[in-house]
Amino acid sequence: MSGKLFIIGLGPGDAGMRTPQADAALAQASDLVGYGPYVARAPEREGQVRHISDNREELGRARHALEMAAAGRIVAVLSAGDAGVFGMASAVFEAIEQGDPAWRGLDVEVVAGVSAMFAASARLGAFLGHDFCAISLSDNLKPWALVLRRLRAAAESGFAIALYNPHSKARPWQLDAAFALLGEVLPPRTPVVFATAISRADERVQIMTLADAESSRADMRTLVLVGTATTRLVERPDAEPWVYTPRFAEDVS
Amino acid sequence: MSGKLFIIGLGPGDAGMRTPQADAALAQASDLVGYGPYVARAPEREGQVRHISDNREELGRARHALEMAAAGRIVAVLSAGDAGVFGMASAVFEAIEQGDPAWRGLDVEVVAGVSAMFAASARLGAFLGHDFCAISLSDNLKPWALVLRRLRAAAESGFAIALYNPHSKARPWQLDAAFALLGEVLPPRTPVVFATAISRADERVQIMTLADAESSRADMRTLVLVGTATTRLVERPDAEPWVYTPRFAEDVS
Repeated sequence: MSGKLFIIGLGPGDAGMRTPQADAALAQASDLVGYGPYVARAPEREGQVRHISDNREELGRARHALEMAAAGRIVAVLSAGDAGVFGMASAVFEAIEQGDPAWRGLDVEVVAGVSAMFAASARLGAFLGHDFCAISLSDNLKPWALVLRRLRAAAESGFAIALYNPHSKARPWQLDAAFALLGEVLPPRTPVVFATAISRADERVQIMTLADAESSRADMRTLVLVGTATTRLVERPDAEPWVYTPRFAEDVS
Repeated sequence: MSGKLFIIGLGPGDAGMRTPQADAALAQASDLVGYGPYVARAPEREGQVRHISDNREELGRARHALEMAAAGRIVAVLSAGDAGVFGMASAVFEAIEQGDPAWRGLDVEVVAGVSAMFAASARLGAFLGHDFCAISLSDNLKPWALVLRRLRAAAESGFAIALYNPHSKARPWQLDAAFALLGEVLPPRTPVVFATAISRADERVQIMTLADAESSRADMRTLVLVGTATTRLVERPDAEPWVYTPRFAEDVS
């Protein structure tokens, strides 16, 4: 088979955070596949076909991309941030494993990107400056009890936490339930950040304490960062404080 | 003060993974500060001064950079990967907090980069394809008991794990002790990857099971990835398998 499948992380939004590797892959592609707002970020190129799909149809989109690559097209599947971090990469390999055995002979290349959580952490200082974890709050593909279990384990053992998919129209109570659980483990003054549309024109960063955190501050484009008991604010004149998690830690048990 | 301090993540090594933002910051800088092999990656520029220091002197290096910025220089502190992930960002904000109060008035910009763990995960497929964590094995700044506690919590609750600083000349037993602990929790067939010098000319990727993992495979430039009980290999003809962690999970309790 002569086709190729790229799975590209476009970075958080600003083109200055998109890598030359991603640009080179976009320039080669005959077909772009993805959620509309991500595909819209790719530079226009004559003859390139754009296949837009809804954000929740990962597996169907992955199969469509694989079929086109198997037919000889140069296909680029697009994700925001890094495609391996709650993006399209895992869905594509799931589709390959379950699909046409010939797909295993395809040339597949995952192009890493700047993750939104690191762009948010950098924007604040060094929020994820030491051991940290990333958890998707979505319970579409895992039980909510497991989400809570992971949150508790992370907070109890002193990981800073990046919460992906914090906002759900179907389950608006989830993020507040997560904050309530975290409040049983972490001090009320633990820094929490709502980072929305990081690096884009309408970027919004809200720094508060865990005690004040509430779900109404998040929307579809928000990433929530939760600190550890050691995460610190560095106040500065005429500007928002920097927030960082120190490299050193004591045992929390 | 008219100086500026950039803290730049250069990405894992290949210039194709260095962002345009990082390039723009490097082009502005009057002074580059960092560990020799990282500074050597920056394009040569006439008149730019390079301040090389040993890899373990983070806080001294951070203070030196802040002093130069306070004196009006445009200083770039360089890290590999993302500067916020076990890089220089946290050390700089620690130095600011403990140092000259005037440093809080400085213009400091953290330029996010492609993290080595995501480049490694992409190279394999989607190794960190769902909830995951990053842990530094170094006990220079935290007790070893806390490292073990975090490892156990992560494995027990089903996080994929990226192990930073897995290799220590001073404590060569640590990585094997970590594998032994993980072996108490995870199945022997859990995928483990030693990813060395990712994206560089001498890149080496070794895929094995947890039962076969041993510390002698790691050196100073190795990142170790440990899967979950659900992490899967997708065998393919005439090539190493892809490795991915599925998006779905069942409760592990």
